[in-house]
Amino acid sequence: MENRRNIIMDGDPGIDDAVALCLAAAHPEAFHLLAFTTVTGNQTIDKVTENARRLVEFYGLDIPVAKGSVVPILRKIETASDIHGKNGMGNVELPKPVKPLASENGVLFLYETIKSLPEGEKVTLVPTGPLTNIALLFRVFPEVKERVDEIVLMGGAAFGGNVTPTGEFNIYEDPEAAAIVFDSGLPIVMCGLDATNLCGIDREHTAKLMGENGAVCRAVGQMVQFYLESVVYKDKPYASIHDAVTFMYLLHPEIFKAVKMPVSVDCSENKNRGMTVCDIRDWNYDTEPSTTVLMDADSVKFQEYLVEAVYTLDRRLGK
Amino acid sequence: MENRRNIIMDGDPGIDDAVALCLAAAHPEAFHLLAFTTVTGNQTIDKVTENARRLVEFYGLDIPVAKGSVVPILRKIETASDIHGKNGMGNVELPKPVKPLASENGVLFLYETIKSLPEGEKVTLVPTGPLTNIALLFRVFPEVKERVDEIVLMGGAAFGGNVTPTGEFNIYEDPEAAAIVFDSGLPIVMCGLDATNLCGIDREHTAKLMGENGAVCRAVGQMVQFYLESVVYKDKPYASIHDAVTFMYLLHPEIFKAVKMPVSVDCSENKNRGMTVCDIRDWNYDTEPSTTVLMDADSVKFQEYLVEAVYTLDRRLGK
Amino acid sequence: MENRRNIIMDGDPGIDDAVALCLAAAHPEAFHLLAFTTVTGNQTIDKVTENARRLVEFYGLDIPVAKGSVVPILRKIETASDIHGKNGMGNVELPKPVKPLASENGVLFLYETIKSLPEGEKVTLVPTGPLTNIALLFRVFPEVKERVDEIVLMGGAAFGGNVTPTGEFNIYEDPEAAAIVFDSGLPIVMCGLDATNLCGIDREHTAKLMGENGAVCRAVGQMVQFYLESVVYKDKPYASIHDAVTFMYLLHPEIFKAVKMPVSVDCSENKNRGMTVCDIRDWNYDTEPSTTVLMDADSVKFQEYLVEAVYTLDRRLGK
Amino acid sequence: MENRRNIIMDGDPGIDDAVALCLAAAHPEAFHLLAFTTVTGNQTIDKVTENARRLVEFYGLDIPVAKGSVVPILRKIETASDIHGKNGMGNVELPKPVKPLASENGVLFLYETIKSLPEGEKVTLVPTGPLTNIALLFRVFPEVKERVDEIVLMGGAAFGGNVTPTGEFNIYEDPEAAAIVFDSGLPIVMCGLDATNLCGIDREHTAKLMGENGAVCRAVGQMVQFYLESVVYKDKPYASIHDAVTFMYLLHPEIFKAVKMPVSVDCSENKNRGMTVCDIRDWNYDTEPSTTVLMDADSVKFQEYLVEAVYTLDRRLGK
Repeated sequence: MENRRNIIMDGDPGIDDAVALCLAAAHPEAFHLLAFTTVTGNQTIDKVTENARRLVEFYGLDIPVAKGSVVPILRKIETASDIHGKNGMGNVELPKPVKPLASENGVLFLYETIKSLPEGEKVTLVPTGPLTNIALLFRVFPEVKERVDEIVLMGGAAFGGNVTPTGEFNIYEDPEAAAIVFDSGLPIVMCGLDATNLCGIDREHTAKLMGENGAVCRAVGQMVQFYLESVVYKDKPYASIHDAVTFMYLLHPEIFKAVKMPVSVDCSENKNRGMTVCDIRDWNYDTEPSTTVLMDADSVKFQEYLVEAVYTLDRRLGK
Repeated sequence: MENRRNIIMDGDPGIDDAVALCLAAAHPEAFHLLAFTTVTGNQTIDKVTENARRLVEFYGLDIPVAKGSVVPILRKIETASDIHGKNGMGNVELPKPVKPLASENGVLFLYETIKSLPEGEKVTLVPTGPLTNIALLFRVFPEVKERVDEIVLMGGAAFGGNVTPTGEFNIYEDPEAAAIVFDSGLPIVMCGLDATNLCGIDREHTAKLMGENGAVCRAVGQMVQFYLESVVYKDKPYASIHDAVTFMYLLHPEIFKAVKMPVSVDCSENKNRGMTVCDIRDWNYDTEPSTTVLMDADSVKFQEYLVEAVYTLDRRLGK
Repeated sequence: MENRRNIIMDGDPGIDDAVALCLAAAHPEAFHLLAFTTVTGNQTIDKVTENARRLVEFYGLDIPVAKGSVVPILRKIETASDIHGKNGMGNVELPKPVKPLASENGVLFLYETIKSLPEGEKVTLVPTGPLTNIALLFRVFPEVKERVDEIVLMGGAAFGGNVTPTGEFNIYEDPEAAAIVFDSGLPIVMCGLDATNLCGIDREHTAKLMGENGAVCRAVGQMVQFYLESVVYKDKPYASIHDAVTFMYLLHPEIFKAVKMPVSVDCSENKNRGMTVCDIRDWNYDTEPSTTVLMDADSVKFQEYLVEAVYTLDRRLGK
Repeated sequence: MENRRNIIMDGDPGIDDAVALCLAAAHPEAFHLLAFTTVTGNQTIDKVTENARRLVEFYGLDIPVAKGSVVPILRKIETASDIHGKNGMGNVELPKPVKPLASENGVLFLYETIKSLPEGEKVTLVPTGPLTNIALLFRVFPEVKERVDEIVLMGGAAFGGNVTPTGEFNIYEDPEAAAIVFDSGLPIVMCGLDATNLCGIDREHTAKLMGENGAVCRAVGQMVQFYLESVVYKDKPYASIHDAVTFMYLLHPEIFKAVKMPVSVDCSENKNRGMTVCDIRDWNYDTEPSTTVLMDADSVKFQEYLVEAVYTLDRRLGK
């Protein structure tokens, strides 16, 4: 499995984080998952950490889970329990975890995990929540940046937000962290709302998943169904599975339109707080931008590949 | 000519203001032009006022020109002489004006002009520069708002600016004025970059106009040619004639995609200063928004109608 | 009366505006009052205009009152009815006015009043509310600045605000207006909280005034008493009569410490909104600052002169 | 020595940091110095770390020095080489250090040092530079807050800044870090410019120190002399030794006026960036504020105690 990427996922499960991890787990030939670190976001740190531990074991993964940042760098957190349910997983109850938490300090654990990579190897970071852990990692242990080959993150939008007219949740919750990461100089793939809004699972496929015997299919179906009943999606034909776009881009870049452009973050307290300011004025760049923004996606292919992955994992685990 | 609209144009000519006025002058059956008020923007107030006077007479219009605001409400002005040339008109020299300036006080003149409308009549304001005059008019003489049926303005952008990643020139130069106007409660049609970037005259038509005998065709051709040689358009097939979209929308709304949405203005000193924050989250409106944003345009039809208007006016004037 | 200054008072009465006007009315040898223009601030424009008309007649002044700006330039107004009472005058009821309102348009009235000054004469503006009218006057009729010799205003603070830690009410309510005025280049005397907090009438003198037979003494006493019972002053020995510091400074500059320094206004939406940023770093000025800030005051003399003026006017009017 | 406080000094030497450490070193009966961590500020991290190592050995201290944060949390650093000289120490050259650097990671070192305190003991943090290290420590290792009894820092100002009208250097350089620290809930003593501007060494004492035989006296004298010749102090009778106020307050709180009040930090990009917003409106507190602000100081006593400490240390070391 030579072409596998080393991956650390950093997220706040979260329904779409949960489905994203399912996609990653279904593709061991592509992803060498090293660890899952958690961060306050969709729900409180205790809930998302519990969810991460359950998900990892439920998907048959043998990777450590570390508990990350409790609060954003500067802001007060506002969780998204209205969208992800009281437990953060659309109230789907997975079995309790058996393995202990690997670490109570996600940032330190990230550092140690990356430091202990075999010489010459690098890691791809896949953040699907606020970027608090990654930003603190880069500030306290800047030397790890040399061991990161790419950051493929869900967050932001070139055009139009969700929590505010221009603010996407993950960035809005910790704009300072996002500014640190986007300003790190590392290659970043920004899977923002421009693409992720187009990437989801529709009502028909959700119903089918819920009707299957396999536990993975049923769990994913039930979580997506919770989305579909929420205020955002209740009148829509499908629910966006934002976070899964990260791994999907790594598997199938050909189904996305990816454009390099300068991106910075609005850290003000004004109406554009948390906006990822994307400069589409291509005549205007001094140097090659380090950020790639996904501007469009093939919705049909996305759903096809994603649903396929759920079935694949389900069959493999035989639950 | 019962269906003619009363129109006051308020602008800062400016190449595209000049072409916009040509379009308006070519359609007397649609537009009853009452006055032209000027505002510092593309060039200093003295230059744009001189330009407005020359244009009005060159196009055979018998309307008063009043000199408007010298400075934005709060900001320092930065003119756009790099794009519009030293004289603000692509260095095209029209004949000197014969008629005197109607007023040295554009805001007061706007008030008096609107107040003296026949009872029951209203006026459509067509601003193609910073909104300084209109904002001051609304603050000092708020009662005139009752006599304004609509504001069809060039400015702003839902997605992507020109002077900054998210700031369009007219709004960026006086964000406070724009905030006052967008917050006025009046029906507004925002002809922003989303549409105006698509609306222009190409190199072929420009060359043809320049080669004509008629003075109007030649002047318009030469001005557009100046655009085509500027830093913004030198690698593009056509030059956008932003300001002309205002009158074109009034003539041919069917060639635009117009969407109602809430719009506010970023008045901070941060990176999104002067952004028109357009909320495309349609599930999110409490009340019907008062602003209509042009989101798309038929480029081919726009050019066809615009070039036709130039020829029409040229023939009529027989210069 | 050759040394009399031409004065236009612009305010939002308001208890301390009312006492300030009493002080001015008591000194006709010093002040040639030309007009009173009103502005939304302590109370709504209708209430403060009614109050201004009543006060002018109650104090025996024969000057026009014009109704000024209804809303600040950009912000939403928050009146101070908790401090000034429901009617804005500590619920003291003065006789209804006899003379009609001079104008419904305060800004236009200011312009016309200043324009009609005898040649060679100038006027001192004394604003005791938000600076909305003055700012709009300067933007729409910039030529009047040549006829203004000085602006002696109540507002701001070098150190410490009242409505917020650094925001003083008059400036906080319309920071953009204040920025326009402080940036006008005209000589300004800023009577801010540094001095005005020290300038008031104590409980003893207030009680004495309330006990007099004269109507002016009683009215002033009752208004100050309302202050003394408010949340701000209930535990203090005296109530500050902020607005009266303007006229007192013109009468007795010797009882104030006045320091020239650069002053600008924080127009952000951040925590220092409306702060008058005073630069006390005297090694740092490029040019002589145009603003004089009152940094200290002789509280005893202030009270003595102010109370004396109330008695003087009362006796003169013989009410 | 039972009453000694455990102390970690965190600074960016820097002339006044150097004198502050001299004061601390002269009082072993009061201060149990555990470590010195450095931070980019007055000079680059490499220079201030070199300076810290030289100072520690020069003053005869046997404590570890760790190299801290290279960049502020969010901002670009602007060092103060104009005030502190090219080497950051007024170009005074102390002997090269003998002992190796204890750690390349100041934040981690702070964590480990505090964690290894004997059970039941706490530490007082004394930051004299930007608060980057302390803020990152609190975010990545929040559990250490329980082992910190107090933070006595040099930074900020209730009234009037130095790098800007309202911004003091240490806070201005990293406002986000300051906001994290002031918002930590820990007891803080803010030694800001209100007190530190009053605390210094005058020309006479400086000259005397420079003329002594002892190496410590001479070095301190030369460094202060560099200050006295800088643009800030060249016309002043004394140079402020801001950072030494921290240890002086711990030794002699009786020479300061200390007032509890709420303090927050302006993290905007506006003109008050980095201002410590101190709320002096005492009628306005909901809960007892956690920050004590030094509002006044006895300049004579400060100089007396400080100069005495320099002689004491000089004599003890016998250099």
